[in-house]
Amino acid sequence: MTEQRIRDLLKQVAARKLDVAAAVTRLRHLPFEDLGFARLDHHRSLRRGIPEVVLGERKTAAQIAAIGARVVASGQSLIITRLSPDKAREVKRKTPRLKYREDAMLGYVVTKPAPKRGHGLVMIISAGTSDIPVAEEAALCAELFGNRVERLYDVGVAGLHRLTSNLESIASASVLIVVAGMEGALPSVVAGLIDKPVIAVPTSVGYGTAFGGLAALLGMLNSCSSGVTVVNIDNGYGAALAATLMNRVGIAEPK
Amino acid sequence: MTEQRIRDLLKQVAARKLDVAAAVTRLRHLPFEDLGFARLDHHRSLRRGIPEVVLGERKTAAQIAAIGARVVASGQSLIITRLSPDKAREVKRKTPRLKYREDAMLGYVVTKPAPKRGHGLVMIISAGTSDIPVAEEAALCAELFGNRVERLYDVGVAGLHRLTSNLESIASASVLIVVAGMEGALPSVVAGLIDKPVIAVPTSVGYGTAFGGLAALLGMLNSCSSGVTVVNIDNGYGAALAATLMNRVGIAEPK
Amino acid sequence: MTEQRIRDLLKQVAARKLDVAAAVTRLRHLPFEDLGFARLDHHRSLRRGIPEVVLGERKTAAQIAAIGARVVASGQSLIITRLSPDKAREVKRKTPRLKYREDAMLGYVVTKPAPKRGHGLVMIISAGTSDIPVAEEAALCAELFGNRVERLYDVGVAGLHRLTSNLESIASASVLIVVAGMEGALPSVVAGLIDKPVIAVPTSVGYGTAFGGLAALLGMLNSCSSGVTVVNIDNGYGAALAATLMNRVGIAEPK
Amino acid sequence: MTEQRIRDLLKQVAARKLDVAAAVTRLRHLPFEDLGFARLDHHRSLRRGIPEVVLGERKTAAQIAAIGARVVASGQSLIITRLSPDKAREVKRKTPRLKYREDAMLGYVVTKPAPKRGHGLVMIISAGTSDIPVAEEAALCAELFGNRVERLYDVGVAGLHRLTSNLESIASASVLIVVAGMEGALPSVVAGLIDKPVIAVPTSVGYGTAFGGLAALLGMLNSCSSGVTVVNIDNGYGAALAATLMNRVGIAEPK
Amino acid sequence: MTEQRIRDLLKQVAARKLDVAAAVTRLRHLPFEDLGFARLDHHRSLRRGIPEVVLGERKTAAQIAAIGARVVASGQSLIITRLSPDKAREVKRKTPRLKYREDAMLGYVVTKPAPKRGHGLVMIISAGTSDIPVAEEAALCAELFGNRVERLYDVGVAGLHRLTSNLESIASASVLIVVAGMEGALPSVVAGLIDKPVIAVPTSVGYGTAFGGLAALLGMLNSCSSGVTVVNIDNGYGAALAATLMNRVGIAEPK
Amino acid sequence: MTEQRIRDLLKQVAARKLDVAAAVTRLRHLPFEDLGFARLDHHRSLRRGIPEVVLGERKTAAQIAAIGARVVASGQSLIITRLSPDKAREVKRKTPRLKYREDAMLGYVVTKPAPKRGHGLVMIISAGTSDIPVAEEAALCAELFGNRVERLYDVGVAGLHRLTSNLESIASASVLIVVAGMEGALPSVVAGLIDKPVIAVPTSVGYGTAFGGLAALLGMLNSCSSGVTVVNIDNGYGAALAATLMNRVGIAEPK
Amino acid sequence: MTEQRIRDLLKQVAARKLDVAAAVTRLRHLPFEDLGFARLDHHRSLRRGIPEVVLGERKTAAQIAAIGARVVASGQSLIITRLSPDKAREVKRKTPRLKYREDAMLGYVVTKPAPKRGHGLVMIISAGTSDIPVAEEAALCAELFGNRVERLYDVGVAGLHRLTSNLESIASASVLIVVAGMEGALPSVVAGLIDKPVIAVPTSVGYGTAFGGLAALLGMLNSCSSGVTVVNIDNGYGAALAATLMNRVGIAEPK
Amino acid sequence: MTEQRIRDLLKQVAARKLDVAAAVTRLRHLPFEDLGFARLDHHRSLRRGIPEVVLGERKTAAQIAAIGARVVASGQSLIITRLSPDKAREVKRKTPRLKYREDAMLGYVVTKPAPKRGHGLVMIISAGTSDIPVAEEAALCAELFGNRVERLYDVGVAGLHRLTSNLESIASASVLIVVAGMEGALPSVVAGLIDKPVIAVPTSVGYGTAFGGLAALLGMLNSCSSGVTVVNIDNGYGAALAATLMNRVGIAEPK
Repeated sequence: MTEQRIRDLLKQVAARKLDVAAAVTRLRHLPFEDLGFARLDHHRSLRRGIPEVVLGERKTAAQIAAIGARVVASGQSLIITRLSPDKAREVKRKTPRLKYREDAMLGYVVTKPAPKRGHGLVMIISAGTSDIPVAEEAALCAELFGNRVERLYDVGVAGLHRLTSNLESIASASVLIVVAGMEGALPSVVAGLIDKPVIAVPTSVGYGTAFGGLAALLGMLNSCSSGVTVVNIDNGYGAALAATLMNRVGIAEPK
Repeated sequence: MTEQRIRDLLKQVAARKLDVAAAVTRLRHLPFEDLGFARLDHHRSLRRGIPEVVLGERKTAAQIAAIGARVVASGQSLIITRLSPDKAREVKRKTPRLKYREDAMLGYVVTKPAPKRGHGLVMIISAGTSDIPVAEEAALCAELFGNRVERLYDVGVAGLHRLTSNLESIASASVLIVVAGMEGALPSVVAGLIDKPVIAVPTSVGYGTAFGGLAALLGMLNSCSSGVTVVNIDNGYGAALAATLMNRVGIAEPK
Repeated sequence: MTEQRIRDLLKQVAARKLDVAAAVTRLRHLPFEDLGFARLDHHRSLRRGIPEVVLGERKTAAQIAAIGARVVASGQSLIITRLSPDKAREVKRKTPRLKYREDAMLGYVVTKPAPKRGHGLVMIISAGTSDIPVAEEAALCAELFGNRVERLYDVGVAGLHRLTSNLESIASASVLIVVAGMEGALPSVVAGLIDKPVIAVPTSVGYGTAFGGLAALLGMLNSCSSGVTVVNIDNGYGAALAATLMNRVGIAEPK
Repeated sequence: MTEQRIRDLLKQVAARKLDVAAAVTRLRHLPFEDLGFARLDHHRSLRRGIPEVVLGERKTAAQIAAIGARVVASGQSLIITRLSPDKAREVKRKTPRLKYREDAMLGYVVTKPAPKRGHGLVMIISAGTSDIPVAEEAALCAELFGNRVERLYDVGVAGLHRLTSNLESIASASVLIVVAGMEGALPSVVAGLIDKPVIAVPTSVGYGTAFGGLAALLGMLNSCSSGVTVVNIDNGYGAALAATLMNRVGIAEPK
Repeated sequence: MTEQRIRDLLKQVAARKLDVAAAVTRLRHLPFEDLGFARLDHHRSLRRGIPEVVLGERKTAAQIAAIGARVVASGQSLIITRLSPDKAREVKRKTPRLKYREDAMLGYVVTKPAPKRGHGLVMIISAGTSDIPVAEEAALCAELFGNRVERLYDVGVAGLHRLTSNLESIASASVLIVVAGMEGALPSVVAGLIDKPVIAVPTSVGYGTAFGGLAALLGMLNSCSSGVTVVNIDNGYGAALAATLMNRVGIAEPK
Repeated sequence: MTEQRIRDLLKQVAARKLDVAAAVTRLRHLPFEDLGFARLDHHRSLRRGIPEVVLGERKTAAQIAAIGARVVASGQSLIITRLSPDKAREVKRKTPRLKYREDAMLGYVVTKPAPKRGHGLVMIISAGTSDIPVAEEAALCAELFGNRVERLYDVGVAGLHRLTSNLESIASASVLIVVAGMEGALPSVVAGLIDKPVIAVPTSVGYGTAFGGLAALLGMLNSCSSGVTVVNIDNGYGAALAATLMNRVGIAEPK
Repeated sequence: MTEQRIRDLLKQVAARKLDVAAAVTRLRHLPFEDLGFARLDHHRSLRRGIPEVVLGERKTAAQIAAIGARVVASGQSLIITRLSPDKAREVKRKTPRLKYREDAMLGYVVTKPAPKRGHGLVMIISAGTSDIPVAEEAALCAELFGNRVERLYDVGVAGLHRLTSNLESIASASVLIVVAGMEGALPSVVAGLIDKPVIAVPTSVGYGTAFGGLAALLGMLNSCSSGVTVVNIDNGYGAALAATLMNRVGIAEPK
Repeated sequence: MTEQRIRDLLKQVAARKLDVAAAVTRLRHLPFEDLGFARLDHHRSLRRGIPEVVLGERKTAAQIAAIGARVVASGQSLIITRLSPDKAREVKRKTPRLKYREDAMLGYVVTKPAPKRGHGLVMIISAGTSDIPVAEEAALCAELFGNRVERLYDVGVAGLHRLTSNLESIASASVLIVVAGMEGALPSVVAGLIDKPVIAVPTSVGYGTAFGGLAALLGMLNSCSSGVTVVNIDNGYGAALAATLMNRVGIAEPK
């Protein structure tokens, strides 16, 4: 612990066991070690009980397994996003505690479950069946981060009645994550119905001028409904983390 | 005049002044002169009583006035789209019959009103106040083309109740033109409510990632609602002409 | 007017002319009370005899089979677009009545054939051999939606004579779907020849600056010919549905 | 459950415990029966004391004044965003109570101040002097929406020390709005320092490959820091509204 | 056959079996049947001895074989571009005379060799080894079209001396096709050295911001050297045909 | 002067004042000084009698006047493209011989007229009235470069009959420059009619998805007609120079 | 000075004038204040004698004057880039020592000239007359940063001989900044001639597909010549600063 | 061989077999043969001991082996970038001395090691594990080019402490190559910490709006930190070569 080390150092100075020049030299080497951007970050995760999250894509199974082992060894829980079934199998051989959800392309190891925190429910709404992988990435992450989560899937234009017939439940959520591809109009509609933060997640679902999610992204960024903010295409995890922070606004961090 | 030339040629054949082989040779060189794509097109306008439409943008007032004079002299009505107030004033000096609607940037001369035709109503729906210039270009053109037209403006997300509270009137339309900028979600919503052709017109209204109407265009092209087709950004006139043709499907052209 | 109908209904209840259960049932059929956007939509399909359409892409065979079973069980016909041969085989195992057209990547189950409706012919015109999959998706869907359909394929610039030599047949159509990739100029040419609604379908055929259909799309959106409207790249199904609605403009829905 | 409520209501009517007029009134307040998406929306504003917000761009001064008068007459406060000084002057002539902040291009009329609500502070951080107009739009709106607001401007890379030297104050915020143009890296840095929701606002500040804010937007959407969500380029108002909702998560709406 | 029909009609007129007015009416309905754009086109190929060219991409081997058979049966030579080795093998089974050049992805059947025509040499210059497939498509097509062809490959910036050391030969060409990927600067350099038409062919060679040939294309379109015109990315065939026409400017077509 | 230096060096060798090895060493350091790409280029212009062309845009009137004076002083003719009327007036004050054509934004000084050369006619075809500035830049430059030039304007889709009724004249051209904005389909149509090189010039005419000429450019690059090559958007001058070179293929340069 | 403050603090602790707890508290407030990213940066400027650089665009004259006054007051020199003549005049009224170079849109105040440092010459090469504003921004900044600077302008393809005839001088440079618009090929050519770092600066010069410098940028990023690195479009200042750092590689910073 | 020809010519002059005028004429025709850009280039490599670098992508194994054999035979070292494991195996069969590093997709043959040169250290910094292939391409190339190289990997936002805790080592570098995908903010942060040239390498790591490295590229081009220059996406080799040249600024080339 840095603060302790500074305290000790100062005590040594006070006790004349260390002269000023030597203390300055030591302190000079502290700042960056001590800066603790990342350490804070690191500790933050531990403290919050939020699992460490690793992007599985573009990493080899060996790299993932190595990182994963280090994380788990440190006592943290672990989430691996965008993990293909093939790699999942390989990683599992080295980390047998790994759980894998193929529909969400998500692997995870829970060393100790995140305590439930937050004002209320995080609701995950998705437009179509094809959006479910992204929606499930968001939903599973949100659960692993310690939120109560509810799902409302397949409520695009062709099923808007399901949306409206669940309005009460929607209205009971604290934060909403709305996942949609194609023209991405669903977040606007949802945000028009309620007064809660809506995190819009464009998906790469669609073809032609969907341009891999660009049409949905632009639709969401230009939403004329209030309170919509947007994350990267297919970024269910990022939405889940943002929702977690929103769900805890005004709640003091556990010491 | 081509037809005259064919007639003369045939007379010569009939009169045995020209033998068949020579006539074939001459005719073989006629086809293109005679092709008359555009002539048909030209006649078509006359026959249908649909005004000639000229794009005012990027033409000088002098050019517009000259083209306009030629059209009006031929007995046709005339529409000039995207006509700035300045140019309108200049054109008016040479064509005093010109009427001008600044809100739609539209000039027109009606030599004889287009007869009302078509199955029913063409309804123009617009999302916001800023979309009105485009919507009015569509509405005025549709009227000048001989349709009965109804307007329903300013029914974006912030005024969806106006849309739904006019559902009966909407349902009574034959064809709908839906004009929207920003995320362009309105055509999807309208098309989800009724079983009529919906022509979506993206507008350049918006800022940032609206990209001058691109976001709205992409939203409309990726609409998951049925029956939506799309025209160019801000192209109210094109939508009006397409609507006119749709409104006359199955109605024989007047001879 | 809905409110009047509600008032009348309530009066009947108050007068005991209508019992509560019957009143609930009737209210359920009122457009807004039980919202039923989607239910209307749902009913609409049933009533019109238009098959339910499912996008096969990005869904697993299992998901498609499940949705399909549900649709067929409800007595509706079913179309699955963008269905790969592999998935088609799997789905067929669970839904033996499934028919599959590999050239159009289209699977379908006809529970009861859509009654023929509409003013006239829907004509599908395509520019090149490579555009046929999209053209056939449009043609098959248009047939399954209850239109009389005619095909005119491979009439790009290299075969324009086929187009012109079929002008009479083209002129006899009510609505035209024109499918083209590369520079996408065919819809402009077709729309220049006739006075009917032309639905332009850009395809992803081409290479280099074709940009997966973008060049064709832009060409079509900027068409200087009248009456052209556009759908998403490769969206044969969407064109077919729009054509169906256009072909029925002015025809009352069957009760 | 709505249906149950309708059934109960009908029973009361049948039992003559409720007369028809009262039943109609109640039904009118049932969410779906009288749809009222927008009405809810409308009432919402009134109830929350959040001003109505109008986009000044692309509207004429006359249109803005008319809309403004209607809003103010209804007792609501009014905000007009992207209002040019010229139009502001014109609007002021008709609405003398209008206040105008040229640096933020913002006009507003406060009929009654929004009550202060929310867990804590909304902090507005901006990267450079040129980003201030957008930051001020966010800050002023956030204040008018009833948040306590603090500003920390001009803390881009060239002034990161100001950011870090204000860490305590930053850490005390509930929600942060981070405004940056050019490469848009500031939200990532801020989000790396604290565990609060960060709303990133890309600005059109920059030149060349800044592409009017696109570079900043992409940087923010791809942020590898947690908890960042993004709004449209230059959309200070949207960020303020989202922040307001986040700041109230878990706080019941006043009746 | 149209010509026959015209001849018969004329004979009837000559025989006074048909009066002039009736003949005019009938002729008026001929034009489109008779238009023969494509027929001319078709005849043109035959007359010039230029092979029919078919794009192999996106066609099935069966489709290619069928089209090929029809072309060859009509006595024309045949070129199939972008023909993969797999399809080539299949087509060869049905068209044993097919020759295949894998390096250029080109299949062809020469029924009778195109006569050598044109003012002089068509020179194909390419920047790198990876550009050879496109360069060879151009070179082989140009040969099959009846040009004398010379190749100068691998003379990008790293081998500019080869370019300059061949200046005399370059200067002796009538038309030059310059093939380059990446930044596409070679056509500018070549056009700066000589006074001949330079056809620039961008290739999809490169990575990252090469954007599949877009960087090369833009470089070529913005060339500050004179006389450069550009074709589509990887379009060796198109360049060869354009070069053929340029090489024959001022040479009368054989009757 | 390099040539003088070489001459001196050779004289020293001849006079045995310098041995061969030393002379080789010195010559080895000459090449670049001596390279004379641009000098050749410069001489080329003089020799061909082709005027020097200067881009007027983004240069101050003073810069243009200075460059122009230098060119004219050297006995060459001069063309200034994209010269605004304002700058033209200023330049004219210093170069009274300057002629200016506002419709083409072109200034020029003819010191001695370019001798007529080339196989035949360069024909300039344009689609619409708004394309005339670019077409005239091409036409005037082609004339000043020594070509016989013919114009055929305003023959877009709405006037295709003019195109076909001029087929004989079109067929008589050696090279064609086809200028079109919007969807840019005209070059494809023209190239389908004749066997001559067609240089396509996209213009920035159009709105919305015309994207300043991009739609036309893409249409032209993807043309399925043969022999089309393309230049930069609005680049009439470049097309004229390319046409000049094509028109002279096979004609020896005057000594 | 921070280090001094730490030293003093430690002395107080050693002298028991400050107890450990109080010292920890004070130190805790140092890190960020003291972090000194920006302070280092600030001091760095002072130490190196490199002027502070302010982007004039999008700032009001008042803002620029205020910032400028602060900088000059601190004893630093000042550069304002992208400063319009109008704003320059205003700023000059408040900062009479301001010098302004309109051709480079650059204002500056030299409080004390930067000492000349660096291995050798920074050479600025530009392609055309229109690129001079950007080239001069680079040249002036490089001089003000303490480099010896040489200019070689207007050596694009049309003047390549000037480039080659200056090869010796080019070869004598330590670092080269090459400024070019349009196709941006010049840096490739320069980098092919010498073994020195080449900083490529794309400019927004050009039209049509130059896309405001994008074509030049892509050309430069895809350069097949070695040693080319690229900065933002029109970013002469950034190139100058990078060149300054390169010119000092291996030279110890003055204390 | 050109040099021989010059020598012979000079001998003839010395021997008075050729007079000076004739010799000048002959020499005038030499320049291009003699130009030797590439020869210089070629020699340059040999002289510097820098290996020849070949792009493996899009070349067949046979082509690579052939080029490689030629290079190695000439005594040079060889680097093949973007060499897939499959091709590497094939090439190795023909060039057994080939070494292959799969993690960097790099093959190389060192005929004689490049002598260590340059002022100091080239440091390679990468943001994430997924960026390592590009970083290793840069690192290995930099080593093979004769630089002392140090690596600092995985120091993105999540590990910024590693960056700051290595500040001394970072500060000791002469030139830095910073490799990052996603939002590409790391080069800005690094350049903000030190006064050394920073070469930013965007990688294609990321998904969605990372657009294959475009987001990172734009972020780097718009960096508000000083001294950052950028290379193509994933271009580790180009960065290494640029760094090599920067590391040698002011160091005379070995003769």
